[in-house]
Amino acid sequence: MNDILSAIRPDVVALERVTHALVARFGARVVTNETVRMQHANTLTWVAAQAPDIVVYPETTEEVAEIVKICAAHRIPMVPFGTGTSFEGHTNAPFGGVSIDMNRMNAVLAVHAEDLDCVVQPGVTRKQVNEFIRDTGLFFPIDPGADASLGGMVSTRASGTNAVRYGTMKDNVISLTAVLPNGEIIHTASRAKKSAAGYDLTRLLVGSEGTLGIITEITLKLYGIPEAISAGICPFPSVKAACDATIMTIQSGIPVARIELADEVQVKAFNVHSKLTLPETPMLFVEFHGSESSVKEQAERFRDIAAEFGGGPFEWATKPEDRTRLWQARHDAYWSALALRPGSKVIATDVCVPISRLADCVEATQQDLAKTRLIAPIVGHVGDGNFHLTLLCNMEDADEIERCRLFLHRLVERSLAMEGTCTGEHGVGQEKMKYLLKEYNTATLDVMRSIKRALDPMNIMNPGKIVVV
Amino acid sequence: MNDILSAIRPDVVALERVTHALVARFGARVVTNETVRMQHANTLTWVAAQAPDIVVYPETTEEVAEIVKICAAHRIPMVPFGTGTSFEGHTNAPFGGVSIDMNRMNAVLAVHAEDLDCVVQPGVTRKQVNEFIRDTGLFFPIDPGADASLGGMVSTRASGTNAVRYGTMKDNVISLTAVLPNGEIIHTASRAKKSAAGYDLTRLLVGSEGTLGIITEITLKLYGIPEAISAGICPFPSVKAACDATIMTIQSGIPVARIELADEVQVKAFNVHSKLTLPETPMLFVEFHGSESSVKEQAERFRDIAAEFGGGPFEWATKPEDRTRLWQARHDAYWSALALRPGSKVIATDVCVPISRLADCVEATQQDLAKTRLIAPIVGHVGDGNFHLTLLCNMEDADEIERCRLFLHRLVERSLAMEGTCTGEHGVGQEKMKYLLKEYNTATLDVMRSIKRALDPMNIMNPGKIVVV
Repeated sequence: MNDILSAIRPDVVALERVTHALVARFGARVVTNETVRMQHANTLTWVAAQAPDIVVYPETTEEVAEIVKICAAHRIPMVPFGTGTSFEGHTNAPFGGVSIDMNRMNAVLAVHAEDLDCVVQPGVTRKQVNEFIRDTGLFFPIDPGADASLGGMVSTRASGTNAVRYGTMKDNVISLTAVLPNGEIIHTASRAKKSAAGYDLTRLLVGSEGTLGIITEITLKLYGIPEAISAGICPFPSVKAACDATIMTIQSGIPVARIELADEVQVKAFNVHSKLTLPETPMLFVEFHGSESSVKEQAERFRDIAAEFGGGPFEWATKPEDRTRLWQARHDAYWSALALRPGSKVIATDVCVPISRLADCVEATQQDLAKTRLIAPIVGHVGDGNFHLTLLCNMEDADEIERCRLFLHRLVERSLAMEGTCTGEHGVGQEKMKYLLKEYNTATLDVMRSIKRALDPMNIMNPGKIVVV
Repeated sequence: MNDILSAIRPDVVALERVTHALVARFGARVVTNETVRMQHANTLTWVAAQAPDIVVYPETTEEVAEIVKICAAHRIPMVPFGTGTSFEGHTNAPFGGVSIDMNRMNAVLAVHAEDLDCVVQPGVTRKQVNEFIRDTGLFFPIDPGADASLGGMVSTRASGTNAVRYGTMKDNVISLTAVLPNGEIIHTASRAKKSAAGYDLTRLLVGSEGTLGIITEITLKLYGIPEAISAGICPFPSVKAACDATIMTIQSGIPVARIELADEVQVKAFNVHSKLTLPETPMLFVEFHGSESSVKEQAERFRDIAAEFGGGPFEWATKPEDRTRLWQARHDAYWSALALRPGSKVIATDVCVPISRLADCVEATQQDLAKTRLIAPIVGHVGDGNFHLTLLCNMEDADEIERCRLFLHRLVERSLAMEGTCTGEHGVGQEKMKYLLKEYNTATLDVMRSIKRALDPMNIMNPGKIVVV
């Protein structure tokens, strides 16, 4: 069984045959030059790049099915590729094979304004879809920071700054069309907003990182653009005070749209990178959506709660340009981290714990950083108990690399010990596979393995990610 | 393969051995008398009852695992049982075997108020959990009408009247503990509010109707009890007008907590059963949650939208007792239907379509009823495009039974033709299995089958439901 299932690097003959078959069918849309192949390996963070042998650019679901059938016939691994903005080695091709680049599948296929949904191809990015639908008065809220492709966002179960109000990709996909490892095309659900008709294959594919099939169409939930949006920032004396104010805000039922923590190191990075003059203390960035009066009321109630925990002054930014500047700074967290120590490699990672443990987890992590002499600004989607570190590593210093590696390991162990998860939104990829056994247990991981085996018996669909079969 | 997988009625010897083993271990908690066995068959609606051979009452996850191992050793089918309020034959035992009654597993194991979650055993009902946590200022919103067990609600992916605001069970379960068909215990997720760590086994089990494993612990999302709740009713000149007003309400971002349609026949049933004097025309029942001022604003905006579509007068019910009386009437839809024609059998069913098609679907269904000389009050979770019929059937009249059967078939066909689903929230059970192939396609249904086979290779876990393997 193991012998059949373990992925293998395809032999030269099989690869030549596949190349030949793909070129015969797709012509110039098949590329094998090294530059392009390297662009399709993992390129962010410190995970070593592992390039595919071939890159192909399909334009339709049927073309994806053809590619998959060609690859399956020769047992060649496939790796779906969107914008390449994942962090854990998701797009690497450890066994070589074919990178299926979805960037030509970038059409919005339908917008159903009355149903608050739209149907997109997987290469459409979140900014593109929002631009496309702007005239309808609707928007798609999920915002992981990068202008990621929606196929990639589905595959990694992305979320981001406003998940606290709008949920994650798992909550905002109505149905999917996907090509299975055998080339068959499935439709996971009707366009009804809810259903109780059988196993939830939509949610099985969301977060499956391309290991069970290739997503080729996505029906997304949309929302009315709020009548009013207001944003503000509020400094706090400690991370704990900021977290406690967040818990109280959410318990009070204030429907906050975003509530983001930046620790003192991150605020410093914002100041350097975005030329701001924020006080260098833990800070909450908040945003409220609603009617004019409800937004005002939400902000006032938040201000009062913040004050109870020593937070303030709460500074409003009602003008769109001020709001944009603040949130741009927040979105540039990754780049601003680099500004603290130019020349470093940025290692972006995330964990997520029950919100009651968030302050403990962040503070213990800060202490660990200090003790280990490492720098890592922290930003947190604090309403969800999720936080990110952008760890700065001098890749010329072997000792520092090792300290970083051990620190990251302790971070995950700390999260798991606090009933958390090894990743809130970045995904497993290659780098976090080793933590799944501890996060779940053998029987649970065996269920994941048996699902992978049932759907992909040849282990050709993004092999070497999530679970080893 | 098919031979191994098709469920079979256990032979007498195997059944005797299992009875012996269960009695040796669980004593008086093993029951085989006919009355109790019949209570554990499907008892609502017109699906014929198929009783199990044995009923057993476990008290812990470990006891469930023991029962499952005993049954698996003898290849005896198992059917998990909660409150028996499902409609599609979910609790029937077509191949006999053991009904595992979860009613002794009725403890709330933990409440984490700061994290807005609680951990319950599956026999706890939705009213029990809300009673238990009332002092915390939190509540669990999902309300399918019946005081169903939470295990059953997970298993059927239940939703109900306030899903439009709070989502369905798929959105409100953080993690599950379950016993697999081989007796192993799995934990589908940590207690973190979100995770991107591997396949979403939580969502795979939600809605799986006991066919993949037995749920033994549930971590539920909780919400702060709204500061203010207001409710009201609003008559409309037509179903279409009521649906259009609903679409506009939702598009406008009014965070309506419930928005329920009752057609003219249902309103008449309310009047008869609950001694009300409502005008007998299509009606929306609405409820708003929020702060005092936001609830008032929501209601005013709704009233204005309703008026645009000819709806009104909108009558408020701010006093809790008035609100309770109205919603009690709505909740008694099932019983009120009976009042229209005492002595009939009530056949409860549901479909769900994209909201833009809801008025068409309801109106075509009303016309079909008139043409077929059948009576079926209609209530709809109109914000989700989901509606219910309580079809009244004289079970003494063979012709009427046949007309009912054909009518129900056309109802599902109509929903599917409008990009809908054969069931929005009741589930597949035995009765809607025949529609899955049309709703999905062969490849999609094959994925469901292969998941079932991978997790339950002996087909002993609630066999004969959802998919035939």
